[in-house]
Amino acid sequence: MKIKDLRFTEKKWDFVKPFHIANNVSTSKVNIEVELVLSDGTVGLGESSSSFRVNGESEAAIFQLQKEILEMIKDLDVRDYRKVFAKLDAYSRTAPSLKAAIQFATLHAFSRSISTPVYQILGGMKDFVETDKTVSIGSLEETVHDAKEIFDAGHKVIKMKVGEDVKSDVARVLAVNDEIKGVRYVIDANTGYTTKEALRFIDAMYRNDVPVGIFEQPVPAEDFEGLKIIRQGSMYPVGADESAKTKYDVMRLIKEGAVDYVNIKLMKSGLSDALAIVEMCNSAGIGLMIGCMSESGIGVSQSVHFAAGTGAFTYHDLDSHLLLKDVDPVGFRQEKDRQYPILF
Amino acid sequence: MKIKDLRFTEKKWDFVKPFHIANNVSTSKVNIEVELVLSDGTVGLGESSSSFRVNGESEAAIFQLQKEILEMIKDLDVRDYRKVFAKLDAYSRTAPSLKAAIQFATLHAFSRSISTPVYQILGGMKDFVETDKTVSIGSLEETVHDAKEIFDAGHKVIKMKVGEDVKSDVARVLAVNDEIKGVRYVIDANTGYTTKEALRFIDAMYRNDVPVGIFEQPVPAEDFEGLKIIRQGSMYPVGADESAKTKYDVMRLIKEGAVDYVNIKLMKSGLSDALAIVEMCNSAGIGLMIGCMSESGIGVSQSVHFAAGTGAFTYHDLDSHLLLKDVDPVGFRQEKDRQYPILF
Repeated sequence: MKIKDLRFTEKKWDFVKPFHIANNVSTSKVNIEVELVLSDGTVGLGESSSSFRVNGESEAAIFQLQKEILEMIKDLDVRDYRKVFAKLDAYSRTAPSLKAAIQFATLHAFSRSISTPVYQILGGMKDFVETDKTVSIGSLEETVHDAKEIFDAGHKVIKMKVGEDVKSDVARVLAVNDEIKGVRYVIDANTGYTTKEALRFIDAMYRNDVPVGIFEQPVPAEDFEGLKIIRQGSMYPVGADESAKTKYDVMRLIKEGAVDYVNIKLMKSGLSDALAIVEMCNSAGIGLMIGCMSESGIGVSQSVHFAAGTGAFTYHDLDSHLLLKDVDPVGFRQEKDRQYPILF
Repeated sequence: MKIKDLRFTEKKWDFVKPFHIANNVSTSKVNIEVELVLSDGTVGLGESSSSFRVNGESEAAIFQLQKEILEMIKDLDVRDYRKVFAKLDAYSRTAPSLKAAIQFATLHAFSRSISTPVYQILGGMKDFVETDKTVSIGSLEETVHDAKEIFDAGHKVIKMKVGEDVKSDVARVLAVNDEIKGVRYVIDANTGYTTKEALRFIDAMYRNDVPVGIFEQPVPAEDFEGLKIIRQGSMYPVGADESAKTKYDVMRLIKEGAVDYVNIKLMKSGLSDALAIVEMCNSAGIGLMIGCMSESGIGVSQSVHFAAGTGAFTYHDLDSHLLLKDVDPVGFRQEKDRQYPILF
């Protein structure tokens, strides 16, 4: 089961509608599809959805790494997957989404060789996971319409994007909460608030009894002190996303007592750091959610297998394939909000 | 690959010679051999070597748990091994060595079903590990004789037991260090010193330029403050063993900055907590060694597969099969100090 070749293919995906989060709008995304070829012809698949905003990655730049990475991992046996993982860890800061794709492709090739799905190599803790779906920033009418559509599609958790303006953000969430009963909200400011804005926002949620599961990344990635203050001042759990990329980031968040939750994304951490973050948050009593960038079918599959295999997550935000046009789920079956990982 | 039966067998092992550590002498040990039987007849093996001193476990008591544990895990699929692990986590404090044996037997049954050795399910990071061998507490002459024998057998690390009397402990280590060149020492006080005794002992090592790799568990298990003071006052790395049983213990050691090293033993932590401890220590810059209780062949095999699979350890103290009479290595090949995990 030795690695013989590594192929990259660029694929462009359009969003169903512009995806608007705090200070950022996306209409399309170019991802890299990875094929890892073994000596017997077995192919492991993976997908990188790079992020300039979160990781500082440029898709065009990391696409050029194919040759040097193949040199590093050629002839390694995918059964010795930690050897491959360790090589890719060198790209933890510079190309984490590519690290994720190749680490997954390694497990996927192993999985095909032993006819055992990846999620069972990772422990098979859950047979399926339940994903939320995201409402991006828009007008009040648009927000309510989108949230109702998500509720009607069977999702029990709705993720709402905020972080541009406290007053209109509060108004939009309250309008949705008036219309819909029986869901919980993950509210994500994507670093858009100051500490005081965040405290005012979350206080408005509490005064209006909005069922917030996590208040995610209110302040800039490096502002651990701000997170800590908001955690102490919030009656709802506060989570880190942009602040929590590598396992070292998360160890620091834990030591500083900065958050109640961590949002793991394979595109930020790869499988190796994600596994470490799972274990250390479990050990520290920190809650876990899993999120995504703009992955298509293969990419979301990576996270579905990881989430089901480890069974570590309270919240799953694995909806990017639903936000992009013409995506077929690969490696999982979607039934309403449920995602069942399969051998593929 | 569903679990259908669980069998326990008691086996008594005699030590080659009385094994003397701080305030404790052993001449024999009764272990529990575990067989986990799947629906298709596949058997997974494991071994519990309980410890009253470290875990508070009684072999006779945990032997009675067979029926209730079988009830808990019956019909679970070993491919969903985290489901089995999670059930056994309920015994983290009361029967950790049994938890370890059954968790390993689960992976071993999975391993046999896919013809892939356990160490590769765990990542296959190393193809072999190098174990030290232990000199127990004895007269100065005996200590030097035993250490030379270990050196002649090809071990590059010698573990020395101390912790009963600083003056004679220092004399014994210095006598060995005068005789043998080119090895490193793991020095283990097994909770036997006070903080000040430990500081005096380790200062004597430094003044005499003894190559100490780790100064292990100088003070009682619960004395985290003592560990921290010794860490700050020692020019050598200070390690926790008896203080580090569960992943929660280790998270606390990390948060308190109490040690440089952690000694993982499957008999204290099982595979589930051991995996967590590996990840969190890697993330916190804490070094790792792996040790054993009084395991025979199967039991040492568990640790060899774990250590090679994760590749996480700087020091390996997997020598109990060498200290017991009539033990055949099972699941690994021993060549001098090298231990190669194999499919079994």
